[in-house]
Amino acid sequence: MATLTNNIPEKTIERLSEYRRSLLSCHKQGITHIFSHVLAGMHGITAVQVRRDLMLIGFSSDTKKGYDVKVLIEFINNILDSEDVMNIAIIGMGHLGQAITNYFNGKRRKLRIVTAFDVDPEKVGSIIDDIPCYHMDQFEEIVAQMDVSIAVISSPTRVAPSLVLPIINAGIKGVLNFTSAPLNFPSGIVAENYDITTILEKVAYFVKESDEKM
Amino acid sequence: MATLTNNIPEKTIERLSEYRRSLLSCHKQGITHIFSHVLAGMHGITAVQVRRDLMLIGFSSDTKKGYDVKVLIEFINNILDSEDVMNIAIIGMGHLGQAITNYFNGKRRKLRIVTAFDVDPEKVGSIIDDIPCYHMDQFEEIVAQMDVSIAVISSPTRVAPSLVLPIINAGIKGVLNFTSAPLNFPSGIVAENYDITTILEKVAYFVKESDEKM
Repeated sequence: MATLTNNIPEKTIERLSEYRRSLLSCHKQGITHIFSHVLAGMHGITAVQVRRDLMLIGFSSDTKKGYDVKVLIEFINNILDSEDVMNIAIIGMGHLGQAITNYFNGKRRKLRIVTAFDVDPEKVGSIIDDIPCYHMDQFEEIVAQMDVSIAVISSPTRVAPSLVLPIINAGIKGVLNFTSAPLNFPSGIVAENYDITTILEKVAYFVKESDEKM
Repeated sequence: MATLTNNIPEKTIERLSEYRRSLLSCHKQGITHIFSHVLAGMHGITAVQVRRDLMLIGFSSDTKKGYDVKVLIEFINNILDSEDVMNIAIIGMGHLGQAITNYFNGKRRKLRIVTAFDVDPEKVGSIIDDIPCYHMDQFEEIVAQMDVSIAVISSPTRVAPSLVLPIINAGIKGVLNFTSAPLNFPSGIVAENYDITTILEKVAYFVKESDEKM
């Protein structure tokens, strides 16, 4: 498995996560089989892309009814999920931190937001959306105690650079940084900078380009 | 210009937006010149990548002091920004909507969040972070009145599919969808689905993979 999955491109991983969400919703509605072009249509991509992605993970379906929804969900689970639950901490429990917990929690069995950190005295020591919120001073201690492996940075941008050292020291393995400050981590830490401003500017650019073409 | 910029890949557009943000911060600190490897280091990428991106937009620098920060900012402005201000509407003024306005507003001269929509009676009719919030029933009317061209969807996921038609009818040109429901729009509309759950699952996957390699 390890050799196989090591070669899956990032974009395919993203799409597998998206397929799974749609498949789960199909399964809930009692749909047992789905054709590649139907799954493709739900995501605005081509059937060829869907088939290529599934071929890449070694999934094939020779049934005339399309893919077996339940079997495909299980197959994607085996690729994406770790055997044990992975715990996530949110750093910065402002609007963005709370939005993330609202959108995410309860959605995935194997991935769970278990704790949050802030410096605001109104938040520290309280429980927000079932998530206990601690002071950033306790970061290392709580991360160890709760076996957290992923940190989501939703703090104000100016605070973000000061979080790099605590994150490294706490032994965090994956970081998702939503602020506008690009952060660099040592190579052992998987880090994804995911700036909302960048994405808005990208959409605006392509709107401008399509305007100019007309 | 149009022929040149039409060929710029999406990832380069994202990086140009990120470079500009770092360059603006350098400029503020009084830094007048920057080497490609310094700019690269700020973003955790190689100097070759930076030089390739800038070559792609036709920017070259033969000075021994590196790139002229102010000139490069202006150059990127010309690529990314439209001549007129582009107006943005937020649909869903919950935690995520408010997080986006907080992170974004005031950051870009040519891109501005001007209005928000919700159905919550506590929000409709009020002004949140300087943004007037209207009922979703008034979407078409307000979009026309305020000349909005981009819609950001930060509503609950279950509401998202019902927003497609109003967005098309209102003549919106670009959509940034943060919910977990993938939305399809006609080809004239630039649409970006940007699901937080997907990104978290991707980071978790690569954490798992790097664990297995050890």
